[in-house]
Amino acid sequence: MVSKKYVYFFDEGSSDMKKLLGGKGANLAEMTNIGLPVPPGFTITTEVCNLFYELGEKYPEGLEEQIDENLKKLEERMGLKFGDPENPLLVSVRSGAAVSMPGMMDTILNLGLNDKTVKGLIAKTNNERFGWDSYRRFIQMFGDVVMGVEHAKFEEALQAKKDKKGVKYDTELTAGDLKELVEEYKKIIQEEKGTSFPQDPKEQLKMAIDAVFRSWNNKRAITYRNLHDIPHSLGTAVNVQAMVFGNMGDDSGTGVAFTRSPSTGENEFYGEYLTNAQGEDVVAGIRTPKPISELKKEMPEIYEQLMQIREKLEKHYRDMQDIEFTFQKGRLYMLQTRTGKRTAAAALKIAVDMVNEGLIDTKTAVVRVEPQQLDQLLHKQLDPKAKEKAELIGKGLPASPGAAVGRVVFDADAAVREVEKGEAVVLVRTETSPEDIQGMAVAQGILTARGGMTSHAAVVARGMGKCCVAGCEDIKVFEDKGYFTVDEKKVKEGDWITLDGSTGEVFLGKLPVVDPEITGDFEIFMKWVDEYRKIGVRANADTPRDAEVARKFGAEGIGLCRTEHMFFEEGRIKAVREMIVASSEEERRKALMKLLPMQKNDFIEIFKVMEGLPVTIRLLDPPLHEFLPTEDEAIKEIADDLGIEFRELKATVVALHEMNPMLGHRGCRLSITYPEISEMQARAIFEAAAELTKKGYKVIPEVMIPVVSHVKEIKILKEQIVAIAEKVMEEYHVKFEYKVGTMIEVPRACITADEIASEAEFFSFGTNDLTQLTFGFSRDDFGKFLPDYLEKGILEKDPFATLDRKGVGELVKIAVEKGRRTRKDIKIGICGEHGGDPSSVEFCYLIGLDYVSCSPYRIPIARLAAAQAALKEEKEKEEAKAAS
Amino acid sequence: MVSKKYVYFFDEGSSDMKKLLGGKGANLAEMTNIGLPVPPGFTITTEVCNLFYELGEKYPEGLEEQIDENLKKLEERMGLKFGDPENPLLVSVRSGAAVSMPGMMDTILNLGLNDKTVKGLIAKTNNERFGWDSYRRFIQMFGDVVMGVEHAKFEEALQAKKDKKGVKYDTELTAGDLKELVEEYKKIIQEEKGTSFPQDPKEQLKMAIDAVFRSWNNKRAITYRNLHDIPHSLGTAVNVQAMVFGNMGDDSGTGVAFTRSPSTGENEFYGEYLTNAQGEDVVAGIRTPKPISELKKEMPEIYEQLMQIREKLEKHYRDMQDIEFTFQKGRLYMLQTRTGKRTAAAALKIAVDMVNEGLIDTKTAVVRVEPQQLDQLLHKQLDPKAKEKAELIGKGLPASPGAAVGRVVFDADAAVREVEKGEAVVLVRTETSPEDIQGMAVAQGILTARGGMTSHAAVVARGMGKCCVAGCEDIKVFEDKGYFTVDEKKVKEGDWITLDGSTGEVFLGKLPVVDPEITGDFEIFMKWVDEYRKIGVRANADTPRDAEVARKFGAEGIGLCRTEHMFFEEGRIKAVREMIVASSEEERRKALMKLLPMQKNDFIEIFKVMEGLPVTIRLLDPPLHEFLPTEDEAIKEIADDLGIEFRELKATVVALHEMNPMLGHRGCRLSITYPEISEMQARAIFEAAAELTKKGYKVIPEVMIPVVSHVKEIKILKEQIVAIAEKVMEEYHVKFEYKVGTMIEVPRACITADEIASEAEFFSFGTNDLTQLTFGFSRDDFGKFLPDYLEKGILEKDPFATLDRKGVGELVKIAVEKGRRTRKDIKIGICGEHGGDPSSVEFCYLIGLDYVSCSPYRIPIARLAAAQAALKEEKEKEEAKAAS
Repeated sequence: MVSKKYVYFFDEGSSDMKKLLGGKGANLAEMTNIGLPVPPGFTITTEVCNLFYELGEKYPEGLEEQIDENLKKLEERMGLKFGDPENPLLVSVRSGAAVSMPGMMDTILNLGLNDKTVKGLIAKTNNERFGWDSYRRFIQMFGDVVMGVEHAKFEEALQAKKDKKGVKYDTELTAGDLKELVEEYKKIIQEEKGTSFPQDPKEQLKMAIDAVFRSWNNKRAITYRNLHDIPHSLGTAVNVQAMVFGNMGDDSGTGVAFTRSPSTGENEFYGEYLTNAQGEDVVAGIRTPKPISELKKEMPEIYEQLMQIREKLEKHYRDMQDIEFTFQKGRLYMLQTRTGKRTAAAALKIAVDMVNEGLIDTKTAVVRVEPQQLDQLLHKQLDPKAKEKAELIGKGLPASPGAAVGRVVFDADAAVREVEKGEAVVLVRTETSPEDIQGMAVAQGILTARGGMTSHAAVVARGMGKCCVAGCEDIKVFEDKGYFTVDEKKVKEGDWITLDGSTGEVFLGKLPVVDPEITGDFEIFMKWVDEYRKIGVRANADTPRDAEVARKFGAEGIGLCRTEHMFFEEGRIKAVREMIVASSEEERRKALMKLLPMQKNDFIEIFKVMEGLPVTIRLLDPPLHEFLPTEDEAIKEIADDLGIEFRELKATVVALHEMNPMLGHRGCRLSITYPEISEMQARAIFEAAAELTKKGYKVIPEVMIPVVSHVKEIKILKEQIVAIAEKVMEEYHVKFEYKVGTMIEVPRACITADEIASEAEFFSFGTNDLTQLTFGFSRDDFGKFLPDYLEKGILEKDPFATLDRKGVGELVKIAVEKGRRTRKDIKIGICGEHGGDPSSVEFCYLIGLDYVSCSPYRIPIARLAAAQAALKEEKEKEEAKAAS
Repeated sequence: MVSKKYVYFFDEGSSDMKKLLGGKGANLAEMTNIGLPVPPGFTITTEVCNLFYELGEKYPEGLEEQIDENLKKLEERMGLKFGDPENPLLVSVRSGAAVSMPGMMDTILNLGLNDKTVKGLIAKTNNERFGWDSYRRFIQMFGDVVMGVEHAKFEEALQAKKDKKGVKYDTELTAGDLKELVEEYKKIIQEEKGTSFPQDPKEQLKMAIDAVFRSWNNKRAITYRNLHDIPHSLGTAVNVQAMVFGNMGDDSGTGVAFTRSPSTGENEFYGEYLTNAQGEDVVAGIRTPKPISELKKEMPEIYEQLMQIREKLEKHYRDMQDIEFTFQKGRLYMLQTRTGKRTAAAALKIAVDMVNEGLIDTKTAVVRVEPQQLDQLLHKQLDPKAKEKAELIGKGLPASPGAAVGRVVFDADAAVREVEKGEAVVLVRTETSPEDIQGMAVAQGILTARGGMTSHAAVVARGMGKCCVAGCEDIKVFEDKGYFTVDEKKVKEGDWITLDGSTGEVFLGKLPVVDPEITGDFEIFMKWVDEYRKIGVRANADTPRDAEVARKFGAEGIGLCRTEHMFFEEGRIKAVREMIVASSEEERRKALMKLLPMQKNDFIEIFKVMEGLPVTIRLLDPPLHEFLPTEDEAIKEIADDLGIEFRELKATVVALHEMNPMLGHRGCRLSITYPEISEMQARAIFEAAAELTKKGYKVIPEVMIPVVSHVKEIKILKEQIVAIAEKVMEEYHVKFEYKVGTMIEVPRACITADEIASEAEFFSFGTNDLTQLTFGFSRDDFGKFLPDYLEKGILEKDPFATLDRKGVGELVKIAVEKGRRTRKDIKIGICGEHGGDPSSVEFCYLIGLDYVSCSPYRIPIARLAAAQAALKEEKEKEEAKAAS
């Protein structure tokens, strides 16, 4: 039986084969094929990774033979031999999934060295110190990554050696020292693992490949995938590549670069390098590298060659590339190219520039910017005036833009703990490592003392759209002591600091932040977006201010105006409470009459801002006990305020208490029991509409009835609301358009949507509550088991952030179909928080909703996601057509 | 345009036309047609009632003409004329829906009397007192029922007259007194309503018909329909019938009777009558009537005629009949026949006897007994030994069997209030009226001082299957003073009493009750039931005792064994709490190991009882905080008991608190977080099974995983459970059958049932939780708005009692279809409380479930409901076949 092809030599692959070869492997193949100087090598496919797990950590049949064949081909290309004492072939073994997961998985360099081949390396390079250092590094990496010996054990031995020699830096150790260290390292492995360091290069290779596959499922990789919505089923490929050395002296070096600025998008070569260093030294952020511009002076030929490669890559890939290179004794090698991660600002600028340069069309530009990323552009910036007066304590690299204000914490656990308490924190570290991921995810921003623009902290923060100042060498961080210093000043855990990720500035204290301005590239880009977008975008906005922001960001109406938020305002809450404690309908009406003019005025202001656009107003939704306190102290105070007995108010609080408020006396159920509440609200809405209509405004109110589970609920309330509308129009002698519809947020409403549509003129899916009820997950309590559910892979994503298509989405689909069956032209939207989530917006587009509604700041995200969904569908249709 | 036929003369109808003519009208027609002596009349259809409401309380086109025509026909038949001063036709106007609603709607007698016709009546009967009394009664009834004058106003005038005359009883008033009273009554109407009592008989008739239609939607009728699951859309018919008089002297009278005993089912004529009385006097329970046997002596001819009618009716209807009759001056008239309400014992006996008598076949017998009714037979009886020693304080009529133990209350509101507090109450009244319905519904039983076996209290209580002792003349009830007396003894509100509804005995104090025995007719009947039943019936049973009862009642397995109920038992709860406060997996395992032998032993006992039958065991379901107290006092005590700090336990309680426990960390979510819990439970189940299998028992455990919302939850837990099963079988060297399945109680589980069925070997619908989540109704909080929902007709029934077919039922159907698509032979049942509700059982049968599971005492009900569902379907298929 001929087995499947599991291994591809670089010249057999291409950039289309990312799923099979991983991103790194596919691009190494592509670069090889377009003639760039890539050290030869081969890729073991991602399929093997999945088989490896399916077979219980074993290789599939035929794999070993294929590895051997490719190894042989590699030896021939290089004119070297694996394990040959004179001409030893050395290789790197690297992971590489279809999606980039920087620093998440393991890498082994210098593989192939052993007690014999090290001598061959020394002889060939005529550099004894280099040979032993390479061997020492290999054993350390292999011992740690492949054999599972604690990293610190090797570090201790290294430190002991330096102490013994009385030196400070590794570079001060001699060849002899390093040779001794090799022996000590081997002993450590023997002691720790009870087995010796393997001398056979083929065994080394097999063990390294195993380790890479295993690293796919280590905890930090799983966390990273969960955070970045990467399916666990992708698997990683393994790349085995001939070694080239950046640490063979001062004519050697290694670097990383972006073909354009990943921070601003400027069309300038942007990168960093280190001479006499191996690649990992740059990425790990241990030494601060030099800007690429210096390479022009230091090694002009290499620089010129890189500039040519930059142009070739951009023309070929038609996108900004993130590259890794090494030069060994003056010769340049490309080790990686991939689409470069970028800030939102950069993504926008690159997309717009590339259209202008004729590299891409506007469709491509629209697809290039990740919707989620826009958040960075749309959120907080520091108030420039406040900055002038603030205490600037340091300046680092502007690694990821935005602003962060929070209390200082020094480790990921503390970050998580404080954020759970409701604190805002800034994570401060000498440098970050993958263990810090969870802390970074919850922090407002990240500040590191070391590392460059491509350090771990910088790359991860940009990916998260999180503010980051990296390599701020003005500060010294003492994580274990709980403070950092700037000159003489100590900043302790819990102190407030503020970061400006766009400038790299670090301030002491809590600075005010301002909303972003939208101009230039953004406007051009959003115009393209709207050309391709086919679904409406509205805002969830409760105040005139929200409505203004929403309109500025392109909202085409309000999809959800929550009236209860107005009830909590100063001066109103008292009337609300009077209504609640009222012992008769009459008293209740009296209290409601106090609220009427206030509510009416709110609506007038909102209608004005949204002139000409529909405004969907939801009737009172929360259970009444939310307006009362539960502590005796507060009850007493409010009872005094209302002029009633403590006992009376306490009795009301007790009577209103609910076991499961989520499933309690709320939404339209309130107005069924107390029709005077919806009566007042409807009157406030329609009087506001009538008054403005008289003044010549065009207002389009849509009254939304929440928590409907039965058609008769909406039937009863619609009758009431329509009567009030007619009456108000008569009183004011005007006519205006209006609609009465319902929120669909209860499974029964989905299942009986055909009945409900006989009354409802529109549906708006409240997917927050619908998700709670469909799963039986309380959003308030879900945090207790969500981490287990993500870790065990039960859920791939938090269903409150991204709509669960199979369960909740299926109910939504059923409701859309049934609703349209009864009322063909029923207007259908979504106003849960999913309305601002790109994947959920795509789903809403695909099932034919008329609009999505989201918070004002997410409107551009929703617009872009909607355009991308339409383009994706168009592309798939074209592909299907082409295939048929 | 010819209008629709809205009015049927009695000889135009038949008993098939109940839907159109109402039960009373259809049966009057039928009796007319089989030659029984029925006073002529006509029926206005139920369709008119619905049109009346649709048209805003107006008559449809053509109705008045049809009434006139039929009135003319009636005049001709009677040789009398409406409004004729010499030969006046008098009629009764009575409501009559398709379903009997005794005393719920209004009736007007003697209609047609006015200042002129009263003289004609007097002349014809030569009885002045009778004439004026009839007129007085008519005005009083008309004023109250039709014109809405307070009943008390007339009573006051009547009392004043009696006081003035120095007499005690109405009968002591003279013709002159009554004539004066007529004038006073007319004045009352004028004063109260500002309009005079109508003298035109046609106007009287129209107003009376309106009033009957309006009475369909009075509050007590709506309540009655809600309580009895009668659709509000049925409407009532109106019957207009020539008057006959039971109050024309001692050779006149009126009575009601059952063709067999409605209490025991004995084949004996059973009824009561009053001489010189109108029909309402019997039903209202104001005078205590004489047993029918006395009629044999008093008026043997009438009695003989009645006996013949009795036989004719039973042969004709092939069922026990409830009849009303009047004799006027020695001539018998039939006023009503309908299927008689009966106790469960009577229903059983009549069904079995009629099969033996050849009147009906077993299929008919099975359909004759209402499943709900069996509850009466299966619940509480007084312990005969305790009765011997108890203090018997009185004896009344055994109006409705069973036993009731509760605290005395004297009005319906108090009953409702006390029951809401958790008290058991017995409602004690001089006599009951429709206003007492809600109090009767919540009380354990009803005791009245006046009224017979057919009094309001007796009829309603039998309908409700509620214990009732009526007409206990030993007691005197002072409702307003809050006590009743027996001789010298005072029994006050709040005192405990006990009723025996099967004997009519009333005891002081709280007597113990015992479970019923099943024998004789019941067994014969249930054998017939099982012949027609096609769906399995299992029990929800948590203890060996429950399991025994269940098996005795015919359970074919256990459908739900809730393991957490075992956790609450003395001696275990401590170990459960140790598990909860454990700070490590190791500690948790230690606590669980203490529970293992106890759980195992429970399962051994249950398996033994259910030998040969499947036992479905649900893994731990409730959130852990349910096992801990919330009050500081109790926390302190338990902390001491566990030997930990108060603060530590308090912290655990706080940490476990949930906003919405219904949607919290429960069900399989617990075992996902703490796999050692399901591990212990699975081990206990399988070790029990293994041990018994070794001893030769056949055990069939089915492990049920609760609250599944995602296939991966069951995948992970099933893997664990199967591994434990395999291991235990290996350890014990035995093999036994077992299944692993899931409860379907979350909407997402229904929607993704195809995925879940890839793992689950059975589904069991937990329709309690599914109803909560589908509606978004918390069962604990729903009581706050359920009454409004029923009253406003939003819900026809409590969805937690009867499965909501359109919403919850649709989800169940989806799940069944999807589940079977993946796994053709998947076993599917239901274990929510709906499993014991007849309508829900029918639904489960219709959608093809394999079994229903319910509480042990409801098993016969479920069996019968299942048989009836199958017979109903068979009949419908036959009818459809016949029609095609």
